[in-house]
Amino acid sequence: MTVPGYLAVDSGGSGLRLAVGVPGRAPAAQRESREPVRTGARGIDPAHLMAQLVPLARASAAEAGIGPLETAAVGAAGFATLGDALRAELPGALARELGVRQAVLAADAVTAYVGALGPRPGAVLAAGTGLIAVGTDLTAWRRADGWGHLLGDCGSGAWIGRAGLEAALRAHDGRDGGSAPLLAGAEEQFGPVRDLPGMLYPRSDRPAVLASFAPWVAACAAHDPVAADILRAAARHMAESAAAVCPADGTPHMALTGGLFRLGDPLLVPLGEELAGRLPHARQVPAEGDPLHGSVRIATDLAAGRFTLPGEPAMLCAVPAQGDRDPP
Amino acid sequence: MTVPGYLAVDSGGSGLRLAVGVPGRAPAAQRESREPVRTGARGIDPAHLMAQLVPLARASAAEAGIGPLETAAVGAAGFATLGDALRAELPGALARELGVRQAVLAADAVTAYVGALGPRPGAVLAAGTGLIAVGTDLTAWRRADGWGHLLGDCGSGAWIGRAGLEAALRAHDGRDGGSAPLLAGAEEQFGPVRDLPGMLYPRSDRPAVLASFAPWVAACAAHDPVAADILRAAARHMAESAAAVCPADGTPHMALTGGLFRLGDPLLVPLGEELAGRLPHARQVPAEGDPLHGSVRIATDLAAGRFTLPGEPAMLCAVPAQGDRDPP
Repeated sequence: MTVPGYLAVDSGGSGLRLAVGVPGRAPAAQRESREPVRTGARGIDPAHLMAQLVPLARASAAEAGIGPLETAAVGAAGFATLGDALRAELPGALARELGVRQAVLAADAVTAYVGALGPRPGAVLAAGTGLIAVGTDLTAWRRADGWGHLLGDCGSGAWIGRAGLEAALRAHDGRDGGSAPLLAGAEEQFGPVRDLPGMLYPRSDRPAVLASFAPWVAACAAHDPVAADILRAAARHMAESAAAVCPADGTPHMALTGGLFRLGDPLLVPLGEELAGRLPHARQVPAEGDPLHGSVRIATDLAAGRFTLPGEPAMLCAVPAQGDRDPP
Repeated sequence: MTVPGYLAVDSGGSGLRLAVGVPGRAPAAQRESREPVRTGARGIDPAHLMAQLVPLARASAAEAGIGPLETAAVGAAGFATLGDALRAELPGALARELGVRQAVLAADAVTAYVGALGPRPGAVLAAGTGLIAVGTDLTAWRRADGWGHLLGDCGSGAWIGRAGLEAALRAHDGRDGGSAPLLAGAEEQFGPVRDLPGMLYPRSDRPAVLASFAPWVAACAAHDPVAADILRAAARHMAESAAAVCPADGTPHMALTGGLFRLGDPLLVPLGEELAGRLPHARQVPAEGDPLHGSVRIATDLAAGRFTLPGEPAMLCAVPAQGDRDPP
């Protein structure tokens, strides 16, 4: 094949998605793997990422009649804190296996940003099981939170669900701050609360288990003040993170992205109020697309020679791919 | 040996301690194992507990010239939520291996209670990495919290340390609620905070890692309002738990036990205020002894036929031991 194309990748906690296309056009083919890329002591495992990525990319390229995939954009969860091995090894591997000549590696928060707002100054709140805020004035990136369910992710799905279960257990114990509706919800969802610790702690997906209770909290908020307070506090934490990354000047755009916002009004109404109070100069806009859309955008801008987003080791790095090349 | 004796056991998160003695007297010998008893799907592993307990008990009995150990009191962490296998199998095993004829099995919170207050009505706050409040009016037990670091243990060492690290990361991110002194402390204790998630999440002793930061929070409280607020909130949560279990009438005794209170005045001063506000009728007294002392007290009262504490499946059960007996 001699139609040079791009490769866009979104590697997240629930698997890997990719798209290929011809620069200047929307993706011609997409593929998905439901197996999350392994992380180890050196961070994201580049070999495991490539083992999933290469066959999917080749199949997509063949389907679309595109190749080589000269330009690549890879957004990966854990890149910011765990990505040393990825930065060291992925560019060479992409060059060898897929003919990539130039690549951008980025934190998934960055591809979420670009997917939501494009290359504009602003701030994006990305919230699901976890939560991170990313902002840029187009000269540097800022991030806030994204530290995981024990150190932060304040306002995330895991945070809301955990707070809801704490309120359920407070009601069970007769402690202040308890909520009988949340206790009833916890027992309906998980069974007798006496068995909750034995169910939760041995699992490896504890944040997801906690987050699975967030919809109950939202469902109770209309009639339960404890649940409403939890969502108000989550909204406040989200706004704190957004305020920490949003450019102070001009009219930055501000978007929400991620599955948590499907909780709807019980979260979105207090969040709108908190954001209006803290970031009155920001213009709230709907997210244009998801993180894979952000990777596509980065890849096509890179192919067109108009990629302008700032580089930063823990957020985004643009690299000419090493490896086998045609002799000059 | 024909001097009948008692066996008292405290099985906790950091290992197993036991004492043997003659009824009516203080322990004659003690032993300690630094290996925590395993827990599995059925709860505390009775075989693993017995494998540690039996040789230590026999050695202690031999040293003291006591045997058989006709009366036993076993306090175990995890008994309340995880103890089904223990309740089913331990009495028979104690009878076969050590000649135990009557036994009390109890949650470690109950032995902590009895160690601190003896068989009196009142409330005990037991706080270390975790936190639980136990109270009794001598007709029933009440417990509050003790749900572990994700579901509760509000005010515990893990809770304080986690809140301190969150405040450190808020300062790092430029979010509201940050504390520069706690950020400096976190970096001194753990290194660059960017590496905290990679250090913390893969470990199996995450609550202990979090709790290891609690002394920093206490050390900062005198000059840092964020740290002082964390300890005030911890004290409030502790008082909420104490209030949920303390008898409402009379003059119940109230004691604090566990390593967390070594944090000293930064915690004890706000805690004293919170307890005085919520439980003005309770009389605060120093804890008489530790959970092993509580097991000794239960065993000697049981041997003397004056054991009167209420039974309750998840808190305390008194059982005649089954197994080989002399024919009647």
